[in-house]
Amino acid sequence: MAKNLLIFLLFVVFTGKAQPNARPVIISPEVHADNTVTFRFYAPAAKEVKLNAQFEKTPLPMNKDERGIWSITTSAVKPDMYPYAFNVDGIQTADPNNSAIFPNEGFQNSLVEITGNSPLVHTVQHVPHGTISYRYYQSAELGTRPVVIYTPPGYEANAKVSYPVLYLLHGTTDTEETWTKVGRANIILDNLIAQGKAKPMIIVMPYGRAYPVISKSSGSLRNWDNLQEFKKDFFNNLLPFVEQNYRTIKDKNSRAIAGFSGGGGTTLYFGLNNTDKFGYVCGFAPGMLKNEFDRNNEVAFKNPELVNKNLKLFWIGVGKDDGLYGVNQEFMQVLDQKKIKYESLISDGGHTWMNCKLYLSTIAQKLFK
Amino acid sequence: MAKNLLIFLLFVVFTGKAQPNARPVIISPEVHADNTVTFRFYAPAAKEVKLNAQFEKTPLPMNKDERGIWSITTSAVKPDMYPYAFNVDGIQTADPNNSAIFPNEGFQNSLVEITGNSPLVHTVQHVPHGTISYRYYQSAELGTRPVVIYTPPGYEANAKVSYPVLYLLHGTTDTEETWTKVGRANIILDNLIAQGKAKPMIIVMPYGRAYPVISKSSGSLRNWDNLQEFKKDFFNNLLPFVEQNYRTIKDKNSRAIAGFSGGGGTTLYFGLNNTDKFGYVCGFAPGMLKNEFDRNNEVAFKNPELVNKNLKLFWIGVGKDDGLYGVNQEFMQVLDQKKIKYESLISDGGHTWMNCKLYLSTIAQKLFK
Repeated sequence: MAKNLLIFLLFVVFTGKAQPNARPVIISPEVHADNTVTFRFYAPAAKEVKLNAQFEKTPLPMNKDERGIWSITTSAVKPDMYPYAFNVDGIQTADPNNSAIFPNEGFQNSLVEITGNSPLVHTVQHVPHGTISYRYYQSAELGTRPVVIYTPPGYEANAKVSYPVLYLLHGTTDTEETWTKVGRANIILDNLIAQGKAKPMIIVMPYGRAYPVISKSSGSLRNWDNLQEFKKDFFNNLLPFVEQNYRTIKDKNSRAIAGFSGGGGTTLYFGLNNTDKFGYVCGFAPGMLKNEFDRNNEVAFKNPELVNKNLKLFWIGVGKDDGLYGVNQEFMQVLDQKKIKYESLISDGGHTWMNCKLYLSTIAQKLFK
Repeated sequence: MAKNLLIFLLFVVFTGKAQPNARPVIISPEVHADNTVTFRFYAPAAKEVKLNAQFEKTPLPMNKDERGIWSITTSAVKPDMYPYAFNVDGIQTADPNNSAIFPNEGFQNSLVEITGNSPLVHTVQHVPHGTISYRYYQSAELGTRPVVIYTPPGYEANAKVSYPVLYLLHGTTDTEETWTKVGRANIILDNLIAQGKAKPMIIVMPYGRAYPVISKSSGSLRNWDNLQEFKKDFFNNLLPFVEQNYRTIKDKNSRAIAGFSGGGGTTLYFGLNNTDKFGYVCGFAPGMLKNEFDRNNEVAFKNPELVNKNLKLFWIGVGKDDGLYGVNQEFMQVLDQKKIKYESLISDGGHTWMNCKLYLSTIAQKLFK
């Protein structure tokens, strides 16, 4: 199938014309100058195709033309980058004509960017760009592990300069690629550094768990064990790998940790209990359960003054419509009771990567200053 | 949808149990010790689900269980890494539970690796690993352009060593990520370098055309124009970017160019007509049309002796079952008539990335020696 398709497309490309009755050429998504977007999907035999886009609260019905192409043109969309998928007779599928994919182990979404009149903080602009490196490090227990590392513009040329490091963790079923491909972490930093709003920093984005959540090795979900294994890997393997292979400033005030959702829960667990290692701890809609507050914050809750003394910033961001808003409110009440200092940003919106980009661009301007 | 799913999965992860009636946990693909593979797809309302895998010539029917999970366990598969997708009531969809995705602008496939008893040339092993860097370079005409660059193990540490460069082009609808994610170019080189079979080299994998084939900017297919624009970009922007930003050996005998399918056609067009710049030109099932032989090889055909004198290797690989086998045979006959020297590998199989991995691992052992 892929082979035949490739040969057909090769034919089209080399001859400039399609064979009669061949699969039509599809452009999707097509973002228009007025911020409306046309989505298209070829499915002549489908009965119902809907667009599931995160700029809409409900799926939008699409209409089929005589060639079998389903399409919809939206109303004007608020500029941002959004995940979306097609629902084809009940089956969720990504957009086959869009190579911008949401890296995830549990679902497939495509990505569409609506830029609007002026570039957004995550829009690729003509500014100096950092480098994203895909690296492997070694764990005796877990084998060869992937990590994505951002080095800021000038890192290669300024061979004598050392940099602070932000460890940035993804959400529950995401991968080490999600923070760059969906969160645009590298582009956000490129832009903020170019504007003088953020310090040049290294960002380390590991595969944020020991095993896949839907574990192919154990066949079961074991969150606490998984977290303990990842903690060992993080402190014994990842952190030394980064400090040995990159020009890092090796003190707690030049180390930050942040993360989204499940990775936000991991961030607070690693960060608040290890304030000798991190000067900055930032949770983006951090995943947590009330009955685990004491267990997960054992060291921090024993000595709140040490937390306040060691941390230059403890920050929590969460959206008003986020399913985790309530438990985060409860957590902040506990922090107040314990007299643990923190800053918070209560944003609009829900448990989304649109909010992740907002949170990262907010805290990036507060780090290492 | 993605939001609800994420919250549900978060719930599962933090509590360790799924809610009743929730979407079941799916493991797919599951590779067994005997090289059989189980594929699973959740679609309770679907009428027919088939597996389209490139290790089979025809789609395999899948069976639905009482939970709505379709599955199939294959017979033993020849060890390799293969693209696959599910055909759900006529709609091709990638595997939502597998984050290994085939980067492409025209279709979506997932990837499954069957390793077998001993590691393959593209299997991640415990050897020194190079770095994959995602970079941007600038084109006055085309804007900010992506390129993926492999530097070999030791590149960062050996700050005074310079390296030869292989420019490696993807197929027609592929992207700058396809050679690493589907072709495993980095892993192949890591392994061959560790075994002393390949020289350490830099590999440059650009986005191999000026505009998307299914052009979002022009709305039309314009292959020749596209190729001319990419040629300008390649020689005026990409090559200088690489030579300015990486420690490269700057002579033709330390520069190679190779490519697959449409990118193989581009490789021959760039390489054979610019033998002052490349000492090695390798086509992997190169895309070509007989009536374009003279146009595309104008410089080379005028002076075959110069081609023979300048090139240390001109290599063509193609599979016996490849749709391009015939035209490649005709091209080699023309090369024979013109007395242009070349090596060829006629392999089994078709127009596939399994063959690409074979071809790359073959030529990598011949380059820069």
